[in-house]
Amino acid sequence: MAAQRMPSPAGPETLAIVGTGLMGGSLGLASLAEKVVERVVGWDADPGMLRRALERGAVTEAAGSIAEAVEGASLVVLSMPVGAIPAAFREVAPHLERGTVVTDLGSAKGRLVQEIGPLVPEGVHFIGGHPIAGSEKEGVEAADADLFRGAFWILTPTADTDPAAYGRLVKFLGGLAVHVLSLDPSRHDELLALTSHLPQLVSSTLMGFAADITAAEGGLPLAAGGGFRDMTRIAASSPDLWLDIVRENRSAVLALLHRFQDALGSTTGFIDRQDWDGLRATLAAAREGRARLPEKPGLEPASLMEVLVPVPDRPGVLAEVTTTVGEAGVNIEGLTIQHSPEGGRGTIHLEINGEAAAGVAVAALEKKGYAPHVAPAV
Amino acid sequence: MAAQRMPSPAGPETLAIVGTGLMGGSLGLASLAEKVVERVVGWDADPGMLRRALERGAVTEAAGSIAEAVEGASLVVLSMPVGAIPAAFREVAPHLERGTVVTDLGSAKGRLVQEIGPLVPEGVHFIGGHPIAGSEKEGVEAADADLFRGAFWILTPTADTDPAAYGRLVKFLGGLAVHVLSLDPSRHDELLALTSHLPQLVSSTLMGFAADITAAEGGLPLAAGGGFRDMTRIAASSPDLWLDIVRENRSAVLALLHRFQDALGSTTGFIDRQDWDGLRATLAAAREGRARLPEKPGLEPASLMEVLVPVPDRPGVLAEVTTTVGEAGVNIEGLTIQHSPEGGRGTIHLEINGEAAAGVAVAALEKKGYAPHVAPAV
Repeated sequence: MAAQRMPSPAGPETLAIVGTGLMGGSLGLASLAEKVVERVVGWDADPGMLRRALERGAVTEAAGSIAEAVEGASLVVLSMPVGAIPAAFREVAPHLERGTVVTDLGSAKGRLVQEIGPLVPEGVHFIGGHPIAGSEKEGVEAADADLFRGAFWILTPTADTDPAAYGRLVKFLGGLAVHVLSLDPSRHDELLALTSHLPQLVSSTLMGFAADITAAEGGLPLAAGGGFRDMTRIAASSPDLWLDIVRENRSAVLALLHRFQDALGSTTGFIDRQDWDGLRATLAAAREGRARLPEKPGLEPASLMEVLVPVPDRPGVLAEVTTTVGEAGVNIEGLTIQHSPEGGRGTIHLEINGEAAAGVAVAALEKKGYAPHVAPAV
Repeated sequence: MAAQRMPSPAGPETLAIVGTGLMGGSLGLASLAEKVVERVVGWDADPGMLRRALERGAVTEAAGSIAEAVEGASLVVLSMPVGAIPAAFREVAPHLERGTVVTDLGSAKGRLVQEIGPLVPEGVHFIGGHPIAGSEKEGVEAADADLFRGAFWILTPTADTDPAAYGRLVKFLGGLAVHVLSLDPSRHDELLALTSHLPQLVSSTLMGFAADITAAEGGLPLAAGGGFRDMTRIAASSPDLWLDIVRENRSAVLALLHRFQDALGSTTGFIDRQDWDGLRATLAAAREGRARLPEKPGLEPASLMEVLVPVPDRPGVLAEVTTTVGEAGVNIEGLTIQHSPEGGRGTIHLEINGEAAAGVAVAALEKKGYAPHVAPAV
């Protein structure tokens, strides 16, 4: 059954974006373009950036202060370098209303989620977030309503995460045509160290190395081909942004760097010893790995399925169910929770795109002792 | 003065392509699409590949033997993995006519050019070539008439290179809308080790490393972002092709790999010691280097200039003049030579795109003791 996904009507959320640069600005543009919200109140520590965000239509209102930005907002998104997020949270916390959901777009989650936990006011919900999209450019000038379209958006719920708040955030994100993947915060950091932070450091090191070597000849030759250009594109990224990410995720990054150096030493060793079979095996394994790299999922749901998971009414069950599904590589398109009239139990309804993915989710949940069942989404 | 470049009329060249896979097939498609030649005779050791090249229109005739392919051809292009080129040259050599120009598309040039030199029959001309374009795909099915469009095409003339033969090859390539850069064969190899072979090995090592680490979890996560995808695109390339290139250019590649390992060790050291200023400097230098990476030149000549270089009539002068210009990063769009009626001297006419580039060429030539002058091309 092919499900039609209707555009979300401008919902009850009032969105506040704190930090209206490239990422925050893109979120504002997308939220308004997709009519997920009607009002986007923006704030930026740089008044020029805020003004330009208003001019570009990335926000509908420029707040006069950070307090004014978040007062009355039902959803607050903190969009700044990850090292600056705890301070921003401290600033907004006294002005948040009960029921407000706060999320962020930071590139590292483990330390951040731990640090923010105790700062969250009673009745307010913080759920860590990280869209897997970006650009080597900066500023609201480079913001793009399509930056997140079709991208993965990782959420990192914890034992304290309120299911209803999580469901509201998933609903908002669903309206942006992104794919929500739920992961444990430290698991997120290990994964990103491998797929983002290590590649960034390798790219920057390669670019700097090539520039150094050719400095005497007046710079890199015109003839650098597409492979070199691909491999150094992200070396154009902001040094401060990356410094911040590496500091935040230092131990995971460092462990991987050491292991990657060993791998590069092994490649070098094959060439040194003229062990061409060894080198061929390395190249062939890489080719095979690349071929298995999953493509981005499409934007259109094939057939939206509902996975119903009966759960005990205890803290942490939402995080366990959603991150189990996320670890299995399955996105969550929507989530609601139904409490049993007798109390003490409930059912989490997960919307999942496609029967195959729903099957993967069910198998993963069964392994953890749940007894889910599947139905076509209504 | 804006110069119009006319499409070359189907010229006197009869093109033979030995090896009608991705690269050879793309060359055939481009040569016919641009009407640089009317006849393209193809040969491939794999009869199926040759048949499909004919079916795709990458060649106009499929030869019955390698001898038949090159007999009567004025331009022969050897398009196979670099390690197989000397054997192919030995095969075609007895069947080449006087005046025939032979070139190749191999990715390493130093050893190859040395090896082929003594095999070249009297009256035949071999000039090493290497288009800086390619694809991680294989076979004539993936051939593309636009593969080389706007790309650099390196030629590696030597002291023995005949100026008229070089001029004919440049003219043929000019018809394909590529930018000819003349380099010394060993200089080509050093440059390509840096801009192509090292990046390939780093990309493959990174991809294999990531696949290894995630093997226990059933492969790489869906959430790998654009940076990771960019950095591992070339890891999908053919292992055999790259094995061949690395064997051919082993010493240059190995030297760079060792130095790159040191550079990566330095990046790792900054993170290990929490020397954030050191890491910031590395990231900032990389960003700056990337910003200085020259963009591909456009397809349209801004204003075609002619640089006239009076030269003594001695062997090696063509290679010295053209590689001096190439080392300076200046492309050659066309080349003719005029011999002085008194003998013993002549003038090389270099067509160069744009006044700035012509100025760079003149300065580089003056440093080597030449006395060039510039005029708008007629």
